[in-house]
Amino acid sequence: MSNRKCNFGAGPCTLPLEVLQQAQQEFVDFHGAGMSLIEMSHRSKEYDSVHSEAMSLAKDVFGTPDDFEILFLQGGATLQFAMVPMNFLKPDNVAAYVDSGSWASKAISDAKLYGNVYVAWDGSECNYTRMPADSELELRDGTRYLHITSNETIGGIRYADWPNAGVPMISDMSSDFMSRPIPWERFDLVYGGVQKNLAPSGMAVVFIRKNVIEELNQDIGAYLRYGIHAKSLSLYNTPPVFTIYMMLLVIRWMKGLGGLPVIERMADEKADVLYKVIDQSGGFFNCPIDEKYRSRMNIVFRLRGEELERKFLSEAGAAELIGLKGHRSVGGCRASCYNALPKACVDTLAQFMREFQRVNG
Amino acid sequence: MSNRKCNFGAGPCTLPLEVLQQAQQEFVDFHGAGMSLIEMSHRSKEYDSVHSEAMSLAKDVFGTPDDFEILFLQGGATLQFAMVPMNFLKPDNVAAYVDSGSWASKAISDAKLYGNVYVAWDGSECNYTRMPADSELELRDGTRYLHITSNETIGGIRYADWPNAGVPMISDMSSDFMSRPIPWERFDLVYGGVQKNLAPSGMAVVFIRKNVIEELNQDIGAYLRYGIHAKSLSLYNTPPVFTIYMMLLVIRWMKGLGGLPVIERMADEKADVLYKVIDQSGGFFNCPIDEKYRSRMNIVFRLRGEELERKFLSEAGAAELIGLKGHRSVGGCRASCYNALPKACVDTLAQFMREFQRVNG
Repeated sequence: MSNRKCNFGAGPCTLPLEVLQQAQQEFVDFHGAGMSLIEMSHRSKEYDSVHSEAMSLAKDVFGTPDDFEILFLQGGATLQFAMVPMNFLKPDNVAAYVDSGSWASKAISDAKLYGNVYVAWDGSECNYTRMPADSELELRDGTRYLHITSNETIGGIRYADWPNAGVPMISDMSSDFMSRPIPWERFDLVYGGVQKNLAPSGMAVVFIRKNVIEELNQDIGAYLRYGIHAKSLSLYNTPPVFTIYMMLLVIRWMKGLGGLPVIERMADEKADVLYKVIDQSGGFFNCPIDEKYRSRMNIVFRLRGEELERKFLSEAGAAELIGLKGHRSVGGCRASCYNALPKACVDTLAQFMREFQRVNG
Repeated sequence: MSNRKCNFGAGPCTLPLEVLQQAQQEFVDFHGAGMSLIEMSHRSKEYDSVHSEAMSLAKDVFGTPDDFEILFLQGGATLQFAMVPMNFLKPDNVAAYVDSGSWASKAISDAKLYGNVYVAWDGSECNYTRMPADSELELRDGTRYLHITSNETIGGIRYADWPNAGVPMISDMSSDFMSRPIPWERFDLVYGGVQKNLAPSGMAVVFIRKNVIEELNQDIGAYLRYGIHAKSLSLYNTPPVFTIYMMLLVIRWMKGLGGLPVIERMADEKADVLYKVIDQSGGFFNCPIDEKYRSRMNIVFRLRGEELERKFLSEAGAAELIGLKGHRSVGGCRASCYNALPKACVDTLAQFMREFQRVNG
């Protein structure tokens, strides 16, 4: 496909072309089964093989220790904002949340409905341009978990170093899911929507420490209980078969490239190219984020004035560089560089930015 | 595709071959957009057109009045078992449930966690072989809704006539969703997983009466509130794009055939063929369900003895008639004949059944 555009959108994400082509090729008749995979029983041998490989390969590539279960749940990270506190919070415990931006705020709003929750660090004071240092986290006694957002898609910030807070952590990792290794020993649960780095929309992947499952609340609806999904290997009800299959193909592709170390290096290289253009532009492009906390996935930047930004976005679109508009809540520009975005797209964008500055600077 | 098998599985379902082929054809490059539909922003013009047509055409084909909203929600009908009572039940009201079998039982279990719930009719007394008559429903004062399961996938029963209970009804319609018209004026909400009659797995469609939304509980997680999805036209978070797109193609196919009246007639014809074979077999095949309440979607039957059933299933599989095994909780055989199952498959099965009886009877 020669006319493939460069998709810098914040999600759903670009997928590897070879993955799309394989899915297309086997779409109508899956491996000679006489039907599509999406028509098969989720209890069939053919699907079971997809399901189990998706589980084991995701844990393999993400370096997940054996003491974690992997769950495939519908509802995206948004449903996890409610499920985490519904399952973990009890009358005699409390949860700490870092307020690092838009997504953290949504997690906090939901959590407050289900238990005792406090904000351990408030990023609004620095206009959400950085993450907290460990020493800034104000943790109280009886804190069951510290909830963080590893990467804020809208704000364009991430933790460069993972917090070491002394209490188990839970992280929303939707926008940098499986883009770098994580210190599993510090987490009780990590979750993320798959539609940015891993697959089409329609699922969250949850990794939960096995030995916390027994302590979770039982008096909640069946679909909302981690324990039920863990016990049934995410086959309690019909799973989102196509999304799981596509994720498997993407994770095979990641493994084929060399796994997480290579994926992380690719992300660093892509982000470095764009931050370099921004930093060398003498202020023509401007990234407000503290250098240490700059996201490798969502590179946010402004130009001088909204009119110039509109011109930039319009000319970029004409050059087949699309999805560069910042989130409607903050404006500006944003280049999302998820796992499957080709480096060539980033190089093309960098060149386009330099040329745009030459003409309009 | 000449080697396409006949899929009588209870779900996920057979999809129309022409729908699969169209999806395959436009999978990698959607209408010349330079990317797949599943890679696009859910706020893009291209996706918005799919999303809004799926909403309006589903309402059109299902005959849904304007005073209902249509919602696309993840988590299948299973999450609806919790969402319905979470949204509707309050300390001063109560909900009635018909216990008509496996799926109704799951809905009841979840509802009991969220409010005052009672069983208005208990099908266990007749071993779940029929639905209740209106006169058998024991309704109490203050009943906010009567929850029914329009078709029990495992038991193979359905309501031939819709209840007229004098209180608003809520129905799980997963296994006969959009297979026949419904009396909308009797319902406040209907829901169903799409993976049987409408699309691949990964979504429920909910129709909710607009004027009840304001009364619903507000103190529940954002994803779990019908009101939030209604207000954002099911774009509060990233929707399951591929499932919605596939559903649109299936509903276009339904409309092309002539809409619900034709779909219903096709279902009746298919079911009649199989019940006739059963009833004319002199007891070689046996359907335990009260004739009036026999499902048009899931035709359950037994043979004389489990050994003969195993032989039947094995030889059927060899004849490319698959998915005929009854649910593991009840055994026996079950032929699910969802909207897209070709009549030719049913005719082949009928012929196979007669021949099997001739040889083994």
